Amino acid sequence: MHQDYIKPDNWSIIEEGFERDNVKSSESLFSIGNGAMGQRANFEEKYSGETFQGSYIGGVYYPDKTKVGWWKNGYPEYFAKVLNAPNWIGIDIEINGEEFDMNVCAQVKNFKRELNMQQGWYNRSFEAKLQNGTEISVNVRRFLCADLDEAGIIKYDITPLNNDAKIVFKPYIDAGVHNEDANWEEKFWEPLSVNQKGENAFVTARTFKTHFTATTFMHNSVSVDGTVLGTTENVEKTNDKIQFTYTVSAGKGQVASIEKIGGYTSSMNHQDTVSAADSVIASAKAKGYETLLRDQIDAWAKVWEMSDITIDGDVKAQQGIRFNIFQLNQTYSGKDSRLNIGPKGFTGEKYGGSTYWDTEAYCIPFYMATKDQQVAKNLLVYRYNQLDKAIENAAKLGFTNGAALYPMVTMNGEECHNEWEITFEEIHRNGAIAFAIFNYVRYTGDYSYVPEKGLEVLIAIARFWQQRATWSTAKNQYVILGVTGPNEYENNVNNNFYTNYLAQWCINYTVEQLEKVSAEFGQDYERILGKTKLTLNEVSKWKDVADKMYLPYSEEHQVYLQQDGFLDKELVKVHDLDKSQRPINQKWSWDRILRSPYIKQADTLQGFYFFEDHFSKEELERHFDFYEPFTVHESSLSPCVHSIQAAVLGKMEMAYTFYLRTSRLDLDDYNKEVEEGLHITSMAGTWMSIVEGFGGMRVKDNQLHFSPRIPKEWNGYSFKINFRGQILKISVHPETTDFALEGGEELTVFVNGKAVTVEPNGLVTV
Amino acid sequence: MHQDYIKPDNWSIIEEGFERDNVKSSESLFSIGNGAMGQRANFEEKYSGETFQGSYIGGVYYPDKTKVGWWKNGYPEYFAKVLNAPNWIGIDIEINGEEFDMNVCAQVKNFKRELNMQQGWYNRSFEAKLQNGTEISVNVRRFLCADLDEAGIIKYDITPLNNDAKIVFKPYIDAGVHNEDANWEEKFWEPLSVNQKGENAFVTARTFKTHFTATTFMHNSVSVDGTVLGTTENVEKTNDKIQFTYTVSAGKGQVASIEKIGGYTSSMNHQDTVSAADSVIASAKAKGYETLLRDQIDAWAKVWEMSDITIDGDVKAQQGIRFNIFQLNQTYSGKDSRLNIGPKGFTGEKYGGSTYWDTEAYCIPFYMATKDQQVAKNLLVYRYNQLDKAIENAAKLGFTNGAALYPMVTMNGEECHNEWEITFEEIHRNGAIAFAIFNYVRYTGDYSYVPEKGLEVLIAIARFWQQRATWSTAKNQYVILGVTGPNEYENNVNNNFYTNYLAQWCINYTVEQLEKVSAEFGQDYERILGKTKLTLNEVSKWKDVADKMYLPYSEEHQVYLQQDGFLDKELVKVHDLDKSQRPINQKWSWDRILRSPYIKQADTLQGFYFFEDHFSKEELERHFDFYEPFTVHESSLSPCVHSIQAAVLGKMEMAYTFYLRTSRLDLDDYNKEVEEGLHITSMAGTWMSIVEGFGGMRVKDNQLHFSPRIPKEWNGYSFKINFRGQILKISVHPETTDFALEGGEELTVFVNGKAVTVEPNGLVTV
Repeated sequence: MHQDYIKPDNWSIIEEGFERDNVKSSESLFSIGNGAMGQRANFEEKYSGETFQGSYIGGVYYPDKTKVGWWKNGYPEYFAKVLNAPNWIGIDIEINGEEFDMNVCAQVKNFKRELNMQQGWYNRSFEAKLQNGTEISVNVRRFLCADLDEAGIIKYDITPLNNDAKIVFKPYIDAGVHNEDANWEEKFWEPLSVNQKGENAFVTARTFKTHFTATTFMHNSVSVDGTVLGTTENVEKTNDKIQFTYTVSAGKGQVASIEKIGGYTSSMNHQDTVSAADSVIASAKAKGYETLLRDQIDAWAKVWEMSDITIDGDVKAQQGIRFNIFQLNQTYSGKDSRLNIGPKGFTGEKYGGSTYWDTEAYCIPFYMATKDQQVAKNLLVYRYNQLDKAIENAAKLGFTNGAALYPMVTMNGEECHNEWEITFEEIHRNGAIAFAIFNYVRYTGDYSYVPEKGLEVLIAIARFWQQRATWSTAKNQYVILGVTGPNEYENNVNNNFYTNYLAQWCINYTVEQLEKVSAEFGQDYERILGKTKLTLNEVSKWKDVADKMYLPYSEEHQVYLQQDGFLDKELVKVHDLDKSQRPINQKWSWDRILRSPYIKQADTLQGFYFFEDHFSKEELERHFDFYEPFTVHESSLSPCVHSIQAAVLGKMEMAYTFYLRTSRLDLDDYNKEVEEGLHITSMAGTWMSIVEGFGGMRVKDNQLHFSPRIPKEWNGYSFKINFRGQILKISVHPETTDFALEGGEELTVFVNGKAVTVEPNGLVTV
Repeated sequence: MHQDYIKPDNWSIIEEGFERDNVKSSESLFSIGNGAMGQRANFEEKYSGETFQGSYIGGVYYPDKTKVGWWKNGYPEYFAKVLNAPNWIGIDIEINGEEFDMNVCAQVKNFKRELNMQQGWYNRSFEAKLQNGTEISVNVRRFLCADLDEAGIIKYDITPLNNDAKIVFKPYIDAGVHNEDANWEEKFWEPLSVNQKGENAFVTARTFKTHFTATTFMHNSVSVDGTVLGTTENVEKTNDKIQFTYTVSAGKGQVASIEKIGGYTSSMNHQDTVSAADSVIASAKAKGYETLLRDQIDAWAKVWEMSDITIDGDVKAQQGIRFNIFQLNQTYSGKDSRLNIGPKGFTGEKYGGSTYWDTEAYCIPFYMATKDQQVAKNLLVYRYNQLDKAIENAAKLGFTNGAALYPMVTMNGEECHNEWEITFEEIHRNGAIAFAIFNYVRYTGDYSYVPEKGLEVLIAIARFWQQRATWSTAKNQYVILGVTGPNEYENNVNNNFYTNYLAQWCINYTVEQLEKVSAEFGQDYERILGKTKLTLNEVSKWKDVADKMYLPYSEEHQVYLQQDGFLDKELVKVHDLDKSQRPINQKWSWDRILRSPYIKQADTLQGFYFFEDHFSKEELERHFDFYEPFTVHESSLSPCVHSIQAAVLGKMEMAYTFYLRTSRLDLDDYNKEVEEGLHITSMAGTWMSIVEGFGGMRVKDNQLHFSPRIPKEWNGYSFKINFRGQILKISVHPETTDFALEGGEELTVFVNGKAVTVEPNGLVTV
């Protein structure tokens, strides 16, 4: 596959020229989504070449029976798979009697894909010569409506170039799809009914086991040069598919078009999914293609109005950050607290599940700053709603008394990962979930979530940490044995600094919130104490653990140790490692990785990122200088944290390099795997690299702080944030920074420690 | 399933009464084998109840495609599965028109199974009333010839009890069998041909991938009251099965018999397996049933002559040890150096592979002392023959320069296990393989194996250890990071005492052998140096590692630590653990087991077992008293080592308890899993418990030492050993011990340190 074939452009992702080897990668890169559903950029017409078909409905999953070589007690029986949903984009096409298939055309030229991120649509255009000699020009535009989020629309135009042509459009909807990621090659969808109502068609299918019902629908309208033609001539039905037929005669130079409205209505939102689908079609038809497109452009304009980042003088960097922001908005709109941010969003099946600690550790800051604060709150509520399952999960592992262990990977709150070293041992995820509550309150100033819901989550997490820590007689302190930290290149280690520190912090933070809720929200306090049966005696046990938590530290190096055994390793820096050995996760066996000092992603430094103000800059620098040289950044979540810390430490070259790596990870296919889908959650890390890294944005004591820095490659950059209902735009230039406020109240921010007050709708240059 | 349903008996395993729930367990317990093949005690006639069908050919396996949830670099692609071979025991039976099936009979009474260990046959007898009212008495005897080891014979007698009966015998051979343990439910056998030649029939099939060809054959002879009847009336053939039909009329009280000769000839031993099978049939026919049975009894008498252990006054203990010795002899005869001792022998499929470190650590002492020394040597040669594959295996994991890592599980030298914490980390197996060479020379006095073959193995192993150890700047010593010791309840630990100690010993022992071979076998030395390209510089690197090997030690407890982090654990003894929590491998999740102090089987103590004379008795006692209380003995290999050490330390109650547990593990089904097959390799540990534990046998400086002890439950016990060509029988009584020598030279042994000389064919009582 060609790397680096995407044209640099400020606002669009563009591919030019048809390369069969790029089809699967482009299917990922040109994916579209609207938060409720999404799909890979598969061709509408038949394509007999290599393709990875994917269309996804938010929240609809299948619990696939676990596949392992050797069962360990405690493994979950099921793995929630991201589910390839019925296909509604399909349009078979015949031209002068020949089935149209780009893979077997005599010639394809001027092929171009464009994903217009500014306006939220995907377009494909090309000219083709068929085997029968007919030459055609094709333009296909497709989008998933941002507002009417159960619908999408395709406008497929064909212009015969050298002859008149008889063109047959055969649009269909089909529930007979399969998953690439299926452990036992089972079918995941059971077809229930296939219905027609005039030009509307409906296929209703139900997932096995989970019993989600989804109706996939279509409505088609065919025209030649704008003159709309009649109804379908023929209907072919099977038990899981329905296909219509429209035949048109287009003269040379005339445009034969089909507009296909399609989408999904599911039992997550409707009792009667078929009649709901009928209503969605009616709404979309009432607007028509042009109005829907205008609505789409308007909707995305609003998104960009709030979340755009501009970079002046570096098109690739500009394209990178916009691609990241665009994909985050396509994946999660924050409207529905049952949804979350899957690691591949709506662009592939890999990893399964929709929710990882990525959400709390990486994504929440983006959604807090670029959306209404309800959006971030919905992500917190998602975990609150799954608290009972997290308590069950902990109970399976032997914890008691309402202790919760949130799952490593989940769709519905149940754990579905099955590698013991991750499933059972990567328990730090519990800490990120508590940290997100703290972070939300710090940024938004909205404390109400804590007494309403958050405190219950915190109590369950504190309970877990207290039970999980054990007393070491040898150390005369509490230890946490047998964990995997964020650095998954070490497994089953003792006293991972990040985990121990988070555990201690979680308990202390929970105790503080208990005191605050007790003092200020008495009624909530009583309710929560009643519900959780929490006693003072238990709290004092927690405190004992937090007070006497062991944190491994090297006097010699003056750094906290990633884990007890770190200094026993052969400390050869990445720099001194032969290039032929990398990436180590492809070149080395697992045991060799484990006993090496190489770090997949920020681990101790992740702790310094979360708790930056607990440490001095000198300490940060010492730890960064100690650990970064051992870090191979083989996780998509690694470069962003390092970019931010390099910026804080004034290492701007490094910060810029890390930034490029995180922002163009998929566009430039660094890991040679983009055909499997995009790395969605790390895209939020890219946003952080600019806002928190280069911009130096922090919130302390309810006030915004900035320390603007600019890579020498850039003329300037800007970003906007929503801070407590006011919109602040920060534009950084090499020598100055502008702060422009859209908001009704003056806002005092701190720039490199100095207070600067911006008037309502005012601008200040520093 | 009923536990403990086997009747105590000195020489036989006996089940009385037909219990459907016991069928699968009895199929395991009554298994028969002759070293070359073996089979579970499946019924010959159709049985529609629950059964686990199994017949196995030594060395014939199938490499099943690996199944894992998450692939790790370095995992082998295939797992050598123990292969259910074509069925040759099958005899469909019709009586007065009704198909005979014990599962649907109107009544079964006087059901009895007997495995006569003294004579090497298995017998099943019962009376049944069919649904059509016919009552019959049945006796079936079966054995696999110890001498003519490609053949077995069945004598199936039916006597009508209440009426005359028309009896149809329909013997068949069938390659259409399946494996219970198949990762992907694939077929493992491809049928090649089905032939008939008079009363002889042959089904030839080939394993997929490995292309072992095996011809399964039969010859039948039918009689009534001893009068042999005619030839088969009918032949039914499919592509993988052939079935004959014999109809006889038996009057009430007359015995209708079928004698079926069957077995396998395989491409491991023959070019033309069909004509080889024809010869085997001819040999067996020439002898006839009665002669074959007499030969069998004679052959087993010889086995017992050499390997019997008697226990006086404790039938269950007697039955236990004989069952263990019997199964070891059924599994491995030592004739063929391509074979080894599978963990389930010929009694089931579980675990796959045929060779584990069990062979070297547990089995070799038994075979050395009870067989010609060539048998043990063959087990060493087996590993020598697989040295290239062990070097390849190490290379896959990043080792170079001819370093070898022997596989954890293998059939042909290739690794086939796939859990990283075992496959890659349970590297101590390499040490046991070196130790077996040392142990063989120590016991047999035959040094020739070292210059001929063993030294090459030792060099490759020493290379591995030198490369696997890494320098710890912090400790200023060599460390071995990321291992799993024999205690599989700790994974990926650092500096496992047993592993580090063995590594150090392996290097030192190899260096000593290099010096000795250099001095005494110059030609071999040159050859080996040429072949291995070993340099003095490399040897000095080895020595550096051995000299500076770190061994974790606790000053406080005055014990070597099982691993670096052991003392950080919550050291709650097994005794204080709630019984409801056990066995922990069924009750606890894996992470909880890993961070607990509980030990699956001897680990530090395994080192003390191997190197007893490196430590004082006080040290042994301190370590035993420290570790045993944390040991849950959830491995079949655990009780025997503890029994031996308890005996050494004079803790006779413990020694006896551990002895019973190891010797009757399967007979009493301690682990509730006997239906999956027997624990063959641990049976050799049972033998060691008596000979090395109670008898206190050791070899030091080419001389035998004994420290006889006797459990108070016993009146006496005796065992025989072959020591360098002379047979010594040791009979231990409560107050005295007799030493009886069968041999042509006087033998001086040490009893509790005092020299005792036994004359040729003499007897000394001490």
